[in-house]
Amino acid sequence: MRELFDLQGVDDRRFSPFCWKAKMALAHKGLDFQTVPIRFCDKDKLAFSGQTRVPVLRDGDIVVFDSWKISCYLEDSYPDRPSLFGDRPGETAGQNLCRFFDLWADGNFVAKTVELVAYDIFSVVLPEDRAYYRQSREKFFKRTLEELAAERTPERVTEWRKLLDPVRTILTDTPFIGGGSANYADYILFGIFQWLRGVTAYPMIEVGDPVHAWREKLLDLFGGLGKTLSQIR
Amino acid sequence: MRELFDLQGVDDRRFSPFCWKAKMALAHKGLDFQTVPIRFCDKDKLAFSGQTRVPVLRDGDIVVFDSWKISCYLEDSYPDRPSLFGDRPGETAGQNLCRFFDLWADGNFVAKTVELVAYDIFSVVLPEDRAYYRQSREKFFKRTLEELAAERTPERVTEWRKLLDPVRTILTDTPFIGGGSANYADYILFGIFQWLRGVTAYPMIEVGDPVHAWREKLLDLFGGLGKTLSQIR
Repeated sequence: MRELFDLQGVDDRRFSPFCWKAKMALAHKGLDFQTVPIRFCDKDKLAFSGQTRVPVLRDGDIVVFDSWKISCYLEDSYPDRPSLFGDRPGETAGQNLCRFFDLWADGNFVAKTVELVAYDIFSVVLPEDRAYYRQSREKFFKRTLEELAAERTPERVTEWRKLLDPVRTILTDTPFIGGGSANYADYILFGIFQWLRGVTAYPMIEVGDPVHAWREKLLDLFGGLGKTLSQIR
Repeated sequence: MRELFDLQGVDDRRFSPFCWKAKMALAHKGLDFQTVPIRFCDKDKLAFSGQTRVPVLRDGDIVVFDSWKISCYLEDSYPDRPSLFGDRPGETAGQNLCRFFDLWADGNFVAKTVELVAYDIFSVVLPEDRAYYRQSREKFFKRTLEELAAERTPERVTEWRKLLDPVRTILTDTPFIGGGSANYADYILFGIFQWLRGVTAYPMIEVGDPVHAWREKLLDLFGGLGKTLSQIR
């Protein structure tokens, strides 16, 4: 059975946006997998992969880490399964633009999201990981988690929502970023919404927003895979 | 003959990034066209299109304006010609992600580029358009063109170059954003570089940058269409 090493929080909650991309990609390809929970502070369990970050996929003898590399590995290794990028054989236009979307998401959108929810994440990190989490994040942001929380004004959330305006434009014309059905670009953004769903009760996206309706559709895919924020087997 | 209404500067220079997207899309489809020069201040010549902005395409009895709409019109109307978006028939994943790239380019990259070259553009605007150009831009930026020019420090240009890091990552693996050959995503970015080539001698992109090498390849496409910054017939 394929194994996906997946970040674990309180109540076995799985909130890593990067791991969600990999889980949705596996489901899109129709590939069975089980998850292996990993805490922030037991990264030595990933030593076999030669690095310390999740997601890591073990598929038989093959080990792949990094969500983008996992998506490319799945696309290349299972070409007869539904395509993640929508390319014709031998072409890579869709893969390249998904990569652009992924880099935009990580470099712009995730970066601006994490400031807004860094304090909320603390409450779902396992007790034994909390000192590490607080220390590493406060060092990175150069302020306390509580200071970050105080900065999350409604105005800042409104500004943050505007970052998704290009996605709203796309969703005006088609149900998914991938068009008539979801593709890897949808899972890139959905991973971030799974993260938000897992860590905060704050209504980051409002009911009535086309992005909210899109997220609901993503939650229904693959037998409701996304609704199982806890352990998936 | 198809007509593309195209912004004109001094020496018949054609520097509009939006018009360049349309010209490259027409060439990609292998469609003949001639350009019709339009100055900033003779937008009444576009009255037939019901609006005042270029590009406007007249294809027989059909009039299309807005570079994005022109690309979609060409893709839909000439399905047997090379695809601009790389989609399989009936699918729109590539089109949607090109649209995201276009919206990112306009909303982020162009917005940050125009501040850096607003003063330079003044020198290639036709004399009769200069008062309009200065007034409208200074009102928008809330400072003079000369103040904007003084703000273009090497540090700001270095920061600006970093906006293209996701594109550099893609170009590490494939010659074009579209993969093995150029597609509409390449023309979106190339239009911006044509604009820069047309308005400033400042080396915004350095020789040795993968983006520079990519731009040289784009300049060679379609018989060197991009090298004809002046009138194209």
